[in-house]
Amino acid sequence: MNRTAATISIGDELLAGETLDSNARLLAGLLGEAGWRVKRHRVVGDDEPAIAAEIRDAAEHVGLVLVTGGLGPTADDLTRAALAAAMEEPLVKDRLAEETLEAFFAGRGYPMPEMNRSQAMRPESARCLPNAHGTAPGVAAMCAGTPVYLLPGPPHELKPMYEASVRPEIGDAVGTRTRELRSFGVGESLAAERIAELMNRDAEPVVGTTVSRSIVTARIRARNPKTTEAEIDAVANRVRAAWAPYIFGEGEDSLESVVGELLTERKSTLASAESCTGGLVAWMVTRIAGSSAWFRGGWVTYENRRKQEDLGVPAEILESTGAVSRETAIAMAHGARSRAGADYGVSTTGIAGPGGGTDDKPVGTVWIAVADARGESVRRFRFPGGRSGVRDRTAKAALQMIRFRLLEEETARLLWEEPLDG
Amino acid sequence: MNRTAATISIGDELLAGETLDSNARLLAGLLGEAGWRVKRHRVVGDDEPAIAAEIRDAAEHVGLVLVTGGLGPTADDLTRAALAAAMEEPLVKDRLAEETLEAFFAGRGYPMPEMNRSQAMRPESARCLPNAHGTAPGVAAMCAGTPVYLLPGPPHELKPMYEASVRPEIGDAVGTRTRELRSFGVGESLAAERIAELMNRDAEPVVGTTVSRSIVTARIRARNPKTTEAEIDAVANRVRAAWAPYIFGEGEDSLESVVGELLTERKSTLASAESCTGGLVAWMVTRIAGSSAWFRGGWVTYENRRKQEDLGVPAEILESTGAVSRETAIAMAHGARSRAGADYGVSTTGIAGPGGGTDDKPVGTVWIAVADARGESVRRFRFPGGRSGVRDRTAKAALQMIRFRLLEEETARLLWEEPLDG
Repeated sequence: MNRTAATISIGDELLAGETLDSNARLLAGLLGEAGWRVKRHRVVGDDEPAIAAEIRDAAEHVGLVLVTGGLGPTADDLTRAALAAAMEEPLVKDRLAEETLEAFFAGRGYPMPEMNRSQAMRPESARCLPNAHGTAPGVAAMCAGTPVYLLPGPPHELKPMYEASVRPEIGDAVGTRTRELRSFGVGESLAAERIAELMNRDAEPVVGTTVSRSIVTARIRARNPKTTEAEIDAVANRVRAAWAPYIFGEGEDSLESVVGELLTERKSTLASAESCTGGLVAWMVTRIAGSSAWFRGGWVTYENRRKQEDLGVPAEILESTGAVSRETAIAMAHGARSRAGADYGVSTTGIAGPGGGTDDKPVGTVWIAVADARGESVRRFRFPGGRSGVRDRTAKAALQMIRFRLLEEETARLLWEEPLDG
Repeated sequence: MNRTAATISIGDELLAGETLDSNARLLAGLLGEAGWRVKRHRVVGDDEPAIAAEIRDAAEHVGLVLVTGGLGPTADDLTRAALAAAMEEPLVKDRLAEETLEAFFAGRGYPMPEMNRSQAMRPESARCLPNAHGTAPGVAAMCAGTPVYLLPGPPHELKPMYEASVRPEIGDAVGTRTRELRSFGVGESLAAERIAELMNRDAEPVVGTTVSRSIVTARIRARNPKTTEAEIDAVANRVRAAWAPYIFGEGEDSLESVVGELLTERKSTLASAESCTGGLVAWMVTRIAGSSAWFRGGWVTYENRRKQEDLGVPAEILESTGAVSRETAIAMAHGARSRAGADYGVSTTGIAGPGGGTDDKPVGTVWIAVADARGESVRRFRFPGGRSGVRDRTAKAALQMIRFRLLEEETARLLWEEPLDG
């Protein structure tokens, strides 16, 4: 069986950029779970011949076609008519669908607007699919020997209709299984080089890398139903070995969730002192439900006066080394730790830009320290990416440094790190 | 001139539903402003012959082709080679692009990984486009007599490259002109009802509404080149009148940028005391470059002890009314203000969930206070949306309350607000 699929999204508003087309991703995920691989996705405007041509072409190239949108009651909803044209069949009225529509409006105390009657039309040999969440029925048909489904555009109507009427009809193969390993602090190119042989496109399972907001992900995909879980595990272990210690988790894990788990395991607590990140580290850790058990509180000390009064950073340090310095970072981290009565203190101080850079300390220069009863880790970075990129990377590097400290990993260098004395 | 365009997004991760393709919408909007209409959008996997066929087919059907993605350094980045195949030309190395890449890595103190060298390749007759925000250069070429641009997939690289290298070359017709008014604190349905007559699809200019993370936007679009700026202004003024005082800005304005402008105008300063938002308010205001001129600092006081020691909230208040109360919110806001020596203090205290709710104070219950020398504004909310939604809405409501306080707007009720004594 040819388990390749095409998805088609219909609507002028998609082509005009007024609406984000999220159905392609939704359907691709659902189809992947059912063992179908989406080979192409196309967006077509509200243009009947163009929609008809696209449906026909897709039906000739893949084993399953899902079309979303253009099933509403207005004059620019043309998907039903386009499917009939692609099938070279007349449109006929579906009695049951029309009665269902009438009942829908009656249940809301309105007479059915005349224009909604068009929603009960379908190609002669097709079937209508019930819509539990809106007025537009779906349509199931065969075109060029390929099953074609017309589904409503709104995701809250689309998904239940897919689950109720499409999923049971398209078979039950083992779908693509995926596993994602997340890392921070290693560049994508270097990370990919280290696992190059696993990334060969013909490998099974195959590994791909993506990077999103500085998190480099290795995505392991098993497409062959005969691939065992043990084989997937073996590949995951090879990636882990190649990327250690930068991999912090899998799937839905985040740096902050992993730090929270480590602190919980060790019955330890954390406090933060932030200058250039302005509260981002605290916000990230408090995203974790239950973080109040291990997060003792934070300071956003933009001004030197706050660093002195709230964190006890000595005025001499601020005067002699400046606010963006190794000594200030260390004093801030210890200050947060002791003021909050926490086991660990983390601090950030740097120049996020766009202003404030000097030859000595250009924009992107950041010091991060993690303090505990044994002492502290401190690192200097030079982050790229403008104000927002520098702040985001600083917070993630701070969380990775907390993780390293908790794991007693002190030697691995992080991306964008600079020598302490450079 | 044929001002129709096609966009092509490249990547297996898009077809697999692992990544949401937002570039189609981004480019459609940008092209619309430049007077180009997107006729089709297609997604193609990491498959060189398929990409080449798609580029060639698009170039034969429209007047401009923009391709995003597949310009990275790895083996599954095939867009450059596909373009060369579509043009029936060899790939050659671009010396300047290679030097730029080497300089990029040298500037970061790393040798260039060998695989990045592939990013300097281009079809023989094509040009490379500089990338100010990443390693992947773009490519500009002619294919079948049609300009084709290859652009990087990450939006923060794509958009600046489009503005710098594509926009100046694709002409200057009067495109769709848009204006966006941003509001917070009014529901989308009510907001739309108030401007229903402006939202008729045949109106010119026409107004549409969208909501994204609780910001309700009115988007005014003038499609007819004969529509004057004065006519657009008149429609904007009608929306402003209907949505006052909830509209805080236009276009790229954010609640925090507008608060920053108001504080700067009044030579006033701000400090924050956050419980349930955990640093989000401080992070948002410090996103604004130059915020150190008016942001005095912040406290993330998750624990009662921190509220007492750092902000001077009396133990009696915490004992008698609890941490989530009108009195605690007021004491936190005044505490932040006086400790930091700021003109305004803002506080948040509430139950973000998922745990911690009671019959009396269910999840989503939040108190927000804004204090100044005259006294304070304080409001109670019941926000929907789970932990992340509650925190995001709390921070935005806090910023809108600061804005209201600065504008002496004390009566308008915000969405999700509850009676103080309810």
